[in-house]
Amino acid sequence: MNPPTPSSERYDRGAEILARIDGSDGQAVVDSLGDLGRYLVEFGFGDVYARPGLPLRDRELITVAMLAAMRAHESQLDFHLLAARRVGISVDELREVIINVVPYAGFPAAINAMIRLHDLEADLPA
Amino acid sequence: MNPPTPSSERYDRGAEILARIDGSDGQAVVDSLGDLGRYLVEFGFGDVYARPGLPLRDRELITVAMLAAMRAHESQLDFHLLAARRVGISVDELREVIINVVPYAGFPAAINAMIRLHDLEADLPA
Amino acid sequence: MNPPTPSSERYDRGAEILARIDGSDGQAVVDSLGDLGRYLVEFGFGDVYARPGLPLRDRELITVAMLAAMRAHESQLDFHLLAARRVGISVDELREVIINVVPYAGFPAAINAMIRLHDLEADLPA
Amino acid sequence: MNPPTPSSERYDRGAEILARIDGSDGQAVVDSLGDLGRYLVEFGFGDVYARPGLPLRDRELITVAMLAAMRAHESQLDFHLLAARRVGISVDELREVIINVVPYAGFPAAINAMIRLHDLEADLPA
Amino acid sequence: MNPPTPSSERYDRGAEILARIDGSDGQAVVDSLGDLGRYLVEFGFGDVYARPGLPLRDRELITVAMLAAMRAHESQLDFHLLAARRVGISVDELREVIINVVPYAGFPAAINAMIRLHDLEADLPA
Amino acid sequence: MNPPTPSSERYDRGAEILARIDGSDGQAVVDSLGDLGRYLVEFGFGDVYARPGLPLRDRELITVAMLAAMRAHESQLDFHLLAARRVGISVDELREVIINVVPYAGFPAAINAMIRLHDLEADLPA
Repeated sequence: MNPPTPSSERYDRGAEILARIDGSDGQAVVDSLGDLGRYLVEFGFGDVYARPGLPLRDRELITVAMLAAMRAHESQLDFHLLAARRVGISVDELREVIINVVPYAGFPAAINAMIRLHDLEADLPA
Repeated sequence: MNPPTPSSERYDRGAEILARIDGSDGQAVVDSLGDLGRYLVEFGFGDVYARPGLPLRDRELITVAMLAAMRAHESQLDFHLLAARRVGISVDELREVIINVVPYAGFPAAINAMIRLHDLEADLPA
Repeated sequence: MNPPTPSSERYDRGAEILARIDGSDGQAVVDSLGDLGRYLVEFGFGDVYARPGLPLRDRELITVAMLAAMRAHESQLDFHLLAARRVGISVDELREVIINVVPYAGFPAAINAMIRLHDLEADLPA
Repeated sequence: MNPPTPSSERYDRGAEILARIDGSDGQAVVDSLGDLGRYLVEFGFGDVYARPGLPLRDRELITVAMLAAMRAHESQLDFHLLAARRVGISVDELREVIINVVPYAGFPAAINAMIRLHDLEADLPA
Repeated sequence: MNPPTPSSERYDRGAEILARIDGSDGQAVVDSLGDLGRYLVEFGFGDVYARPGLPLRDRELITVAMLAAMRAHESQLDFHLLAARRVGISVDELREVIINVVPYAGFPAAINAMIRLHDLEADLPA
Repeated sequence: MNPPTPSSERYDRGAEILARIDGSDGQAVVDSLGDLGRYLVEFGFGDVYARPGLPLRDRELITVAMLAAMRAHESQLDFHLLAARRVGISVDELREVIINVVPYAGFPAAINAMIRLHDLEADLPA
């Protein structure tokens, strides 16, 4: 049994998407994670996010909602709140997504995400 | 301190949305839940879902993703998979939403939701 | 290093509490679980529930709320909904506890628990 | 479809409860959250907490237990640990609630909450 | 942007592992899941499980523990309890894994898993 | 009903294990937690970890995986990543465990754990 060999087509496709949605240091974080980072790019972005059946905008809408509902760590919420802005989701729409979390996962999850959004807002791409 | 009084405007607005997204027995379930059902209609649908900042289609996209990621019970996934179909989301789009759950919440969450979708598909409105 | 030896004082104290709060087959389930069941009785009931700092009524209030918020499996919610009734918590109070779950863990968690309560109500000790 | 209109009776009732249980900057946080904060006051406090069927003491007991079991963020645990003290729950009782979390949600959840309680204890209202 | 193309080397490697750990209908379930099933085989088994750094036995030990701690659905726990047996983990070792879940995720998670193990035991490969 | 009396045999057995797996201030944290700390030593380490049916190495493998999958707090992940090293698990094996978390609990959980591991690596016992 051999270790998985890098699939450069999948990696390149994922890295291109990562570059599109990321305004900061996403690739550097990926590089620091070794094979875990490679899988994130190949599978998370190259396989899943690259699928044509749903636009990036819809993918970021649901990703922000899931991360908020899961009460994800600060850096991961921040990454996708910024990514959402870069694929054209407005701050007001992000507020709506976060408010929509309340009936399903409660106020604590939504409040965490809203505070992250507010803290980021000054830095968000205009 | 008095108990909350029913706010018929909020309830009516929520019940109208519930009727739009629900092809089955949503109102009957709501009625069986007493005040919990009333809050679901008033707050969940009348306050949150009724907000104009995000179309019902986007709300159902993110709700299906959250419920899948939270590995919600069968009846709740079923309700929103059907609701998603009624606000115009195709079965193929629902498959995409569920596949998008994998990188964030893992395969078990996504497989549960995909099996629910497949079991419902025969009954879904065409 | 030796395996833990049964601590009969802790076990007896836990089994006594289990008998008080359980109207059905709790001890049979415990016996079927082997050492896991023994730990449940010794530690869960004999150490924790037996502590004098909080009455059993308060312990069942918070246990029902936690199990509802965690969207616990049916049999475990049922066990503690019945236990709550046996330590003097009314059905109306249980409804309040479940409604109090909504702001913190969302409607799906609360609806699951309310449906369990309704299904059990006919069988609840009067 | 119109946006929900503020329901001042519900808001006022919720704000009154918030003021009773909050010894610090709850209302300022609420104000910073926009409509999410309004819903927290109207629905979380004005609808749910204001219900007469369960005293505030019991509501805070179960809320602390749920937040501990859910391993909530520091600021949310802190808010309700302090709120619990203001509605008459002693530090010893809070320790009992947190110990009662262990059998249901494990030691990591309980240890997090106990450390928050210890860190707050010096500042708790006497 | 093109859809991901099937990577037959990764798929074949994953399908071989799936066949080794699965005594029942794993491949049929995978086939019914479409692209989600393909990703499960390619990524879950072909990329991750195939890695040489940890033997399959250790992978199943930690997978059973994670699924138990996450209170996974019955079919997913069953699949990996059976898989664990097929890679040489004894029923007694599975009981130890499940008991080890208690201090971290509580009794409800462990009891669910132990009941699944007991229900499967009669059918387990000898 | 009396409070549980300390069981010194269980405590001593647990404290011995804690000392073996802990290279830092575990006992000091335990002492600060009062009865919660005592239960952690008596039950978590003295009852569960001390069981002969699974070596400490396997227990730490599954504990790290569970804490990663549960997205545990930093201090708790750190404690068990260091404990894993002290019972002979290599940094490369810990990376494998964390990568094995991805298919079951998603990338955010695994990334959190991998970042903790990297931050600790400089301080890890050689």
